Amino acid sequence: MIRGIAPGAEIADISHLIRPYAVREGALILASSVSYFPQSVHLAVIDPGVGSARRALILSVAGGSSVLVGPDNGLLLPSAARLGGVEGAWEITNPDLGLPDRSPTFHGRDVFAPAAAHLVRGVSPDMFGPEVAPGSLVRLPASPVQDLGGCLSGEVTLVDRFGNLQTSFRPGDLAGLKPAAGETHLEVRLGALTLEATLRKSYSSGEPGEVQLVEDSHGCMALCVNRGSAADLVGGADPGTPVLLGRPGFCL
Amino acid sequence: MIRGIAPGAEIADISHLIRPYAVREGALILASSVSYFPQSVHLAVIDPGVGSARRALILSVAGGSSVLVGPDNGLLLPSAARLGGVEGAWEITNPDLGLPDRSPTFHGRDVFAPAAAHLVRGVSPDMFGPEVAPGSLVRLPASPVQDLGGCLSGEVTLVDRFGNLQTSFRPGDLAGLKPAAGETHLEVRLGALTLEATLRKSYSSGEPGEVQLVEDSHGCMALCVNRGSAADLVGGADPGTPVLLGRPGFCL
Amino acid sequence: MIRGIAPGAEIADISHLIRPYAVREGALILASSVSYFPQSVHLAVIDPGVGSARRALILSVAGGSSVLVGPDNGLLLPSAARLGGVEGAWEITNPDLGLPDRSPTFHGRDVFAPAAAHLVRGVSPDMFGPEVAPGSLVRLPASPVQDLGGCLSGEVTLVDRFGNLQTSFRPGDLAGLKPAAGETHLEVRLGALTLEATLRKSYSSGEPGEVQLVEDSHGCMALCVNRGSAADLVGGADPGTPVLLGRPGFCL
Repeated sequence: MIRGIAPGAEIADISHLIRPYAVREGALILASSVSYFPQSVHLAVIDPGVGSARRALILSVAGGSSVLVGPDNGLLLPSAARLGGVEGAWEITNPDLGLPDRSPTFHGRDVFAPAAAHLVRGVSPDMFGPEVAPGSLVRLPASPVQDLGGCLSGEVTLVDRFGNLQTSFRPGDLAGLKPAAGETHLEVRLGALTLEATLRKSYSSGEPGEVQLVEDSHGCMALCVNRGSAADLVGGADPGTPVLLGRPGFCL
Repeated sequence: MIRGIAPGAEIADISHLIRPYAVREGALILASSVSYFPQSVHLAVIDPGVGSARRALILSVAGGSSVLVGPDNGLLLPSAARLGGVEGAWEITNPDLGLPDRSPTFHGRDVFAPAAAHLVRGVSPDMFGPEVAPGSLVRLPASPVQDLGGCLSGEVTLVDRFGNLQTSFRPGDLAGLKPAAGETHLEVRLGALTLEATLRKSYSSGEPGEVQLVEDSHGCMALCVNRGSAADLVGGADPGTPVLLGRPGFCL
Repeated sequence: MIRGIAPGAEIADISHLIRPYAVREGALILASSVSYFPQSVHLAVIDPGVGSARRALILSVAGGSSVLVGPDNGLLLPSAARLGGVEGAWEITNPDLGLPDRSPTFHGRDVFAPAAAHLVRGVSPDMFGPEVAPGSLVRLPASPVQDLGGCLSGEVTLVDRFGNLQTSFRPGDLAGLKPAAGETHLEVRLGALTLEATLRKSYSSGEPGEVQLVEDSHGCMALCVNRGSAADLVGGADPGTPVLLGRPGFCL
C-alpha cells in the first residue's frame, strides 16, 4: 500500500512480533525506538478494536516534524511523549486518502498505511479529517511502581528473545533500596519464586548463570541471567506479571 | 542476489513464514497481496521439487505489466488470476541470466532471484527461455466447497498468528444457510468439536471470547474468537483440516 | 541509527533469528551469504560480551572494498576468509563516530550500527580507532572432522527451518567412505540413534520420507528428510551435537 502511494519511501520495520492484542507491549517497543529515527512518519497498528468506533489518528509532536499514525487506544502516546509531546491530533476520516473499499477487519492495510504514505508525500495532517482534542485521546494506565518501604512493587513490562524480563522499575526507583553492610544482593519475587539478584552495569558482568538486575537499553531495570534466560529460570513470565524488588527480607 | 544485479531495486518481503512445503498456503498469501502492489516483479519460492525436473517460470498477466517468477507447482497461478490471468509463460533456462554455478538445492538464490532482478532491469521475459503453453502449467486442486443442504463442507485454508482460521467458504456460499426464526448461531464442526458461531462484520463485534464467523481481509469466511484464538480453542488446526458449517442440527 | 547517519543506505537483513549467544551459528550464516552481495558494509552483532572489554572491530578484506563490522569474538572471521582474508583491522573507539551516550547493553545500536553507517558514507576505517594486529583477533575453534577409518566424526553445525541438519562434513571428506558392492546407504549416528541415509544431489530426489545426505547450498553435507524434517526425526538436535557418518557397521 505504501509503495503504491509513495514510491521510493524508505520503510523500516521495527517489529512484527508483538503478541496479539498487546497494545502496551507495542507502545513500549515503539517508544523505545522512535527517538533513534530521523524525521519520520511512525506507523503502528495493534488494533483489537478494528471495525468498532475507535478513532484512527494522526498525531503531530511538539518541536518536531515527525508524525505518528495509528489507532486511538493508547498505542501512540508514549512515543509522542518521547518525541516532545502531542501538539496536534486529527481523526482519519477522509475516504479519498484511504482504500475506497475499506474492509472492517484490516485497517492497517486500508486506512493506516495509506494515511502514512500520503503523509510521506507531504499531505498535511488536517487534510485527513477533523482535529481532535488531545485531552480526549485514549491513554493506557501507567505501569505502577509502589514503594512499600525497602521493597518496590511493580510488574514485568516486556520479555525479549534472550529471556530478559524488563520491569516497570527505573534506576531512580531503586534509591530507597540502599543495601546495609554485608548485603550484596537484592531479592526479586515473581509469583511463588524468590531470586537473589546482583546489580550489574551490563549483561556480561559477573559469571555465566548469574541472576542480575541490569539497566537495559530502554532505561528500565531488567531481570537477566548472564548468557542464559531469566524467563526460562522463572518458568515463563508474561508482561503484566507482578514483581516485588527489595532488600533481603523486606518484601513480605 | 537481487541487489547485485539490480542495484536500487525496491524489495518488499511479504512473508518468510510459510510452513515448509506448503505450496497452497504460499499461493493464498501471495494472491491476497499482489493486487495491492504497484507494477512489480512478484518473486515467490516454495519449492519442494527443487533439483527435480519441475520447470522454473516467468508469467506475464493480461492487461498489466507485472510479472510473476517462481516454480511450476501451482504457487503463482492464483495470483496471476487476481492480476488479470496468465497472458504469457516462459521457462527459465538461459544460464547467462542466473548464477553460473547453479546448486541443485537453492534455486531461490541461484535461479529465481537472478531472474527477478534481470526482469526489474528490463530484460524481456522471452530472453530467459522457451515459451510455455499456459494450459500445461501445474495447477493446485481447488479448495472444495460442497453444499450438503443447510450445511456446507469445506476446509481450513490458512491459520494466522492471531489464531483466526480462514476457511474455503466465501460469503456468497452462505446464502443457502438462511436462519429460521430464533436461530442466532451457525454450527461449525471441526473433527469431533461442534462450536456455535455468530456471524459478525468485524473481529471486535460482540463480547470478548465470542466465537465468530467474520469475512476476513482476503474475502474469506474465518472462524475467530474476539480477542482470543480460535486455533487455541479447537486445540490447533492445520490448513487442509475439513470443516462443516451449517444451521443448527443440519450438519450430521 | 543507520538511516539517521546515512540516509538512502540500502539495508538488507540476512537474519534476526540466530539463537541467543550462538556466535558460531551467526558466523556460519554470515559466511554463507557475504559472497553473494555486491560491495557492502557487513554488520553483524552476536555479542554475549557486550559491556565487557571485548573489542569492537572493523575489518577490511584483501582485494575487495567490502568491510565487516562487529564484535571481536570470532563472528566476522569466516566471512572475511570467504571475501579474501583479513587485510586490515581497526578497533572502534572514536566517540565522535557513535552514539555519544553509549549504553553498556546495546552496542548494536550505539556502536556498531553508527560505525557501519559512517563507513557507508565513506569514512575511512582508520578514523574509527587504532589499528589492530590481525593475529590478535579472537578466533572460533574449527568445527572438527576426524577420520576414524570408514567412519567420520563431526558435528551438527546448523538446523534450518525445514529441519535439515547441516553438518561439519564437506563433500570431499566423504572420499574415504567408498561403498563396497551392495552397500546403498551410509550410516549416521546421532546420540543413541542410527539412521540409514542415501546420498542424493537434491532434497527432492528419492521418495518422500527418505532420509538423505545432500550437499546443501552452503557446500556442506546436510542430513535431510525428503518433504519432512530430519530434526523432527531425531527428536531435535542443536548445533554442536556430535555426529558419526560411516559405511554400514564402521561406526562403533
